[in-house]
Amino acid sequence: MDPRIREHAEIIVDHSTDVQQGDNVVISAPSVAEDLAVALHEAVGDRGATPVYLASDSRAGRAYLKAIDDEDIETPTHLQALYEESDALLRVRSETNATEQGDVDPETQSTYTKARRPVQEVALSKRWCLTQFPSPASAQLAGMSTEGYENFVWDAINKDWDAQREHQARMVDILDPADEIHIKSGDTTDVRMSVDGMHTINDYGENNLPGGEVFTAPVVDSVEGEVLFDKPLYHQGREITGAHLVFEDGEVVEHSADQHEDLLTEVLNTDDGASRLGELGIGMNRDIDRFTYNMLFDEKMGDTVHMAIGRAYDDTVGEDREANQSAVHLDMIVDMSEDSFIEVDGEVVQRDGRFRFEDGFEE
Amino acid sequence: MDPRIREHAEIIVDHSTDVQQGDNVVISAPSVAEDLAVALHEAVGDRGATPVYLASDSRAGRAYLKAIDDEDIETPTHLQALYEESDALLRVRSETNATEQGDVDPETQSTYTKARRPVQEVALSKRWCLTQFPSPASAQLAGMSTEGYENFVWDAINKDWDAQREHQARMVDILDPADEIHIKSGDTTDVRMSVDGMHTINDYGENNLPGGEVFTAPVVDSVEGEVLFDKPLYHQGREITGAHLVFEDGEVVEHSADQHEDLLTEVLNTDDGASRLGELGIGMNRDIDRFTYNMLFDEKMGDTVHMAIGRAYDDTVGEDREANQSAVHLDMIVDMSEDSFIEVDGEVVQRDGRFRFEDGFEE
Repeated sequence: MDPRIREHAEIIVDHSTDVQQGDNVVISAPSVAEDLAVALHEAVGDRGATPVYLASDSRAGRAYLKAIDDEDIETPTHLQALYEESDALLRVRSETNATEQGDVDPETQSTYTKARRPVQEVALSKRWCLTQFPSPASAQLAGMSTEGYENFVWDAINKDWDAQREHQARMVDILDPADEIHIKSGDTTDVRMSVDGMHTINDYGENNLPGGEVFTAPVVDSVEGEVLFDKPLYHQGREITGAHLVFEDGEVVEHSADQHEDLLTEVLNTDDGASRLGELGIGMNRDIDRFTYNMLFDEKMGDTVHMAIGRAYDDTVGEDREANQSAVHLDMIVDMSEDSFIEVDGEVVQRDGRFRFEDGFEE
Repeated sequence: MDPRIREHAEIIVDHSTDVQQGDNVVISAPSVAEDLAVALHEAVGDRGATPVYLASDSRAGRAYLKAIDDEDIETPTHLQALYEESDALLRVRSETNATEQGDVDPETQSTYTKARRPVQEVALSKRWCLTQFPSPASAQLAGMSTEGYENFVWDAINKDWDAQREHQARMVDILDPADEIHIKSGDTTDVRMSVDGMHTINDYGENNLPGGEVFTAPVVDSVEGEVLFDKPLYHQGREITGAHLVFEDGEVVEHSADQHEDLLTEVLNTDDGASRLGELGIGMNRDIDRFTYNMLFDEKMGDTVHMAIGRAYDDTVGEDREANQSAVHLDMIVDMSEDSFIEVDGEVVQRDGRFRFEDGFEE
């Protein structure tokens, strides 16, 4: 086994989720990531914890979704019971065919997502980590060779997360006490929102591996302006390109996309919260140096910001603030590398992808 | 997909476990059996039920068992919670490497089996089916080509189970009201036991697929004599050959084996019930015409009997009878094709592999 796989497993179990003796652990992975699943079982056993191994299989998921009537889709209460009795959830993503579920009806998918929401609530209340294993099909999605993609993934994951935490803390110090954020990129993105009373989280590889962003939640009705999400957006096996959203009083009042606009519409119509922002994130992982059509990596790039429609993470929402509720959480990215800036309370903190506290920042 | 896979899935879901709209279903399968898992998800979705997909992975299981200290092995209470909230458990076995767990310490394996016993109790209280998918390594274990083994498996499984039920009912009618059973084969097996007050079950492909046996439980302290189990016995990735047991007052007082006697000893020492018989079974599936080193098939052959040390199945034990309790249930087979007979209350009901109600039976 590639020694980087065992290193990856150790980071998940120790740094990301702090697995301890006596913990009940769920390991969820597709079969193409079996090597990492094996290394995780070894690491979990070594720490005296007890694993259950869930298969994550896009062919099986598709077969179920194509066969079931929408009105029969129910919350998997047995899965919920499993999660409730667990301490840590380790979820490995990897592709065998990234477009496997591309012919599932978006409405069915949306009904399914809604039905699973109570399960998702339980999952988010546990120690959890979502990570990526580099399969050939994942490499193909990124347009890379398998070996090149392996290097990319493990360079971004098997790193010094304490140093990364310190780098990001400087941005947290700016964003956490802030009120108004103004983001502008070219002629297509010009949006303002308040983060007053919200908390900014430093993501250094705990819930997401790789980590490498700071993120917070907009005040629900404060978002005003328009955004063109000009970077790859893959959802349910389909690529939405050129997604454009116009916000008024925090709500999406106009939307369009160059490709798969119907899917975007479906997502926005999932529930009330699906047409409002739940997250503003700022990518800060400089080891991620290219887009790979994988949000787990793309949103962490150093010269991007991302906004998610749908659910806000509880720990980003201030005690006296409303948390946006939704069954969906869809991240979308804006390229900030050229002709762009982020202003916080009237002061420019990032220009053309460089942060105020980094070399190369232009006043 | 081979159409026999969908047929197999339909039999599991309809005939074996009667999956209904609203059921919570657990599908457990190794990745090499993905095609059947996909067909099961389709069948389960089609009936309006909700699946959870558990990976069954011998490499991952081995990694955990090699890494954990025996004293840290605990009951997976999260898995137990999953099962408790389920209606039907569909378990697919298939091999990628049948000897994958051959280097796990038998004592560790035994501790693990004991820790999982409460989970097993819950599983047995549900509608459940254990079946086999024909992988290349499973074919190798049987000493067959992959295609030859596929034909063997699906011939034994995709069949008319109503006709099989009727064939077996004739043996149930003999065994159910009986008291003393006497089994003799050559000079090496000569054993007597009472089944007075016990129930005989007709296995026609519900809990086991293939089915094809009738089975009951011996009165716990009634077993007297000796048995040489002269047919293949695979346990925890190791083959035990020439297992020989001597019973007094129902208990194993002497044992030996030509190969892996240590493993046999370990199993017998698991707990009190592990050195007593929990099952007497009579194979009756004439479509299974060869040994394949797989108990699910071997024990169903028409000219064999099998006895299991350990746990008795609840539904075989009469209301006023003691049920043998144990964390183990290990089936072992006696060849009855030559120089052999089964006597029930003094009357020969099988001689040299032919039943009294079959053509070719010699009075």
